[in-house]
Amino acid sequence: MVLENDLLLRVARGEKTERTPVWLMRQAGRILPEYRAVRERLSGFVELVQTPELAAAVTIQPVDILEVDAAIIFSDILVIPEAMGLAYEMAEKKGPFFPETIKTEEQAERLRTVVPEEDLAYVIEAIKITKKELNGRVPLIGFAGAPWTIFCYMVEGQGSKTFSKARAMLYKNPDLAIRLLNKITESTVRYLKAQIKAGADLVQLFDSWAGILPPDLYQQFSLTFIEKVCQAIDEVPFTVFAKGAYFARKAIGKLPCQTVGLDWNMDIAESRELVGMDKTLQGNLDPCVLYGSYDQIKKATQNMLDQFGPYRHIANLGHGVYPDTDPDKVRCFIDTVKTHSF
Amino acid sequence: MVLENDLLLRVARGEKTERTPVWLMRQAGRILPEYRAVRERLSGFVELVQTPELAAAVTIQPVDILEVDAAIIFSDILVIPEAMGLAYEMAEKKGPFFPETIKTEEQAERLRTVVPEEDLAYVIEAIKITKKELNGRVPLIGFAGAPWTIFCYMVEGQGSKTFSKARAMLYKNPDLAIRLLNKITESTVRYLKAQIKAGADLVQLFDSWAGILPPDLYQQFSLTFIEKVCQAIDEVPFTVFAKGAYFARKAIGKLPCQTVGLDWNMDIAESRELVGMDKTLQGNLDPCVLYGSYDQIKKATQNMLDQFGPYRHIANLGHGVYPDTDPDKVRCFIDTVKTHSF
Repeated sequence: MVLENDLLLRVARGEKTERTPVWLMRQAGRILPEYRAVRERLSGFVELVQTPELAAAVTIQPVDILEVDAAIIFSDILVIPEAMGLAYEMAEKKGPFFPETIKTEEQAERLRTVVPEEDLAYVIEAIKITKKELNGRVPLIGFAGAPWTIFCYMVEGQGSKTFSKARAMLYKNPDLAIRLLNKITESTVRYLKAQIKAGADLVQLFDSWAGILPPDLYQQFSLTFIEKVCQAIDEVPFTVFAKGAYFARKAIGKLPCQTVGLDWNMDIAESRELVGMDKTLQGNLDPCVLYGSYDQIKKATQNMLDQFGPYRHIANLGHGVYPDTDPDKVRCFIDTVKTHSF
Repeated sequence: MVLENDLLLRVARGEKTERTPVWLMRQAGRILPEYRAVRERLSGFVELVQTPELAAAVTIQPVDILEVDAAIIFSDILVIPEAMGLAYEMAEKKGPFFPETIKTEEQAERLRTVVPEEDLAYVIEAIKITKKELNGRVPLIGFAGAPWTIFCYMVEGQGSKTFSKARAMLYKNPDLAIRLLNKITESTVRYLKAQIKAGADLVQLFDSWAGILPPDLYQQFSLTFIEKVCQAIDEVPFTVFAKGAYFARKAIGKLPCQTVGLDWNMDIAESRELVGMDKTLQGNLDPCVLYGSYDQIKKATQNMLDQFGPYRHIANLGHGVYPDTDPDKVRCFIDTVKTHSF
């Protein structure tokens, strides 16, 4: 199917476009009252993730309501550990919790390598429904967590300021860490390929906990595996977003991916220099700007656009939109990108 | 009183010394069984902070037991908001919690400017007792939170992954933010001066939440106030530790301070280049290394020392020592610094 609006894909491929495309991390879920109306009818977040019709519906909401240039499938990076055999619970306001965590070789051995069409059929189905209902309006983004970030949750069992248990394993038992990372990597590649087969037009890897490793360990225990995923996916454009990995920008610029996400701490000009000229950059407005006035939002967005320049930039926030953001302010951000970059 | 071991102060002042001094952030408290024995007799952390004899006792423990080259007064950065009028509770494993947070000009207006000899007499007394009992063995480090980090707690009310409420105020009401930051700054200067008067031989400012601001906001809402504190303190050497503020290393290198702390994400050679040659650097072993084997700890510590070089370096971790670290492993780190840098 030919897309009516393929700005995102053209920019990701390095083409010059008539304006800068824009979408928001976490645009599906969280901020829209229409999302909350769907969510309230269900027992919890996980039920919504696992109900394809509803996941598709909330995926499309921001396309209808906010007029973003891309949809991103409503899901969670933790579907992978769950499909591998480690179930999680999503406690409201407290984040994910894994009753069982990986401590031994035997536990790692018992984990399944995911067969997405079976183990994650609900995501694949949600993508198919979304593609059908989007009917070519905008591209659909698929995603997964980077192996290191998934590893963090599987070893730590929950969110943490330091992820010291997960990091400890890199020193205490690096062989087990690498075995587990390889297993996650293989499942992730299969999962992304299945998303693409089902219709995802671009895929993004989220390395949410990239920023907690020293540079040498990040290379060894994260980038190595991100690279394997990049190398395995050549069907569609690929985005790497390694939050906090400022020290790895040069190395990320050498990955076989098309787009590199920047968080709001990262200086735009410096990042362009480190990443190099042959990647598209995505980001990176401070999500807190959207708590400001319309005037502040317009100015900060224009300033960001001017710094990135007109080409090879996908406008986004530097992290997921915060739950208590006013959708009208989000709309202001989106409209400013559309008019200012034209 | 002449110090028997003044390595820390000589290195902070830029002198070449016979070996590299070593201490650990959070060395007082957390890891030693002798600390836990004191702690268990009390109702909680805050009681220990507010009981000078006991605070002094746990301050000296690591000097006796681990043979570090400096003591750091056992206290908490949150004594400042408390003394200004915002009481906090310390929930075990959950961190600090403020029942009241600052939302309005009126609330900010009501906050006291601290008179340390009265409002924080318990810290001043603990320093005096510590100095007496240390009897010149090693220098005593005093400390405070950087104004931005204290602001984060006073506005957010608790620890947070994003501190989005605190950051929101920078956009929504920058005038209130600056008024509050100035008030915190004045109290902090008075507090550090009182610590020095009571006997602190060096003071350190901890900007724990430096890493959550975009570079321009960090300059405006944090560095500006750190600089004011630095400028006001010229009695003893001054250390700035801005965790996560990789983007500000060049600017921090220009502050009127003697020592700059590095976290474990920061590349040593790059940091030296950015900070410049006329500052002492402090840090920055990954605290997780201490979960490794003795052999791993020795190698990683030696590697770190070699990267910093023999002068203008104070060996430390890149963050506070983690609570479940084996004191024997800490001892291995300390001994390696002492022998390898000799």
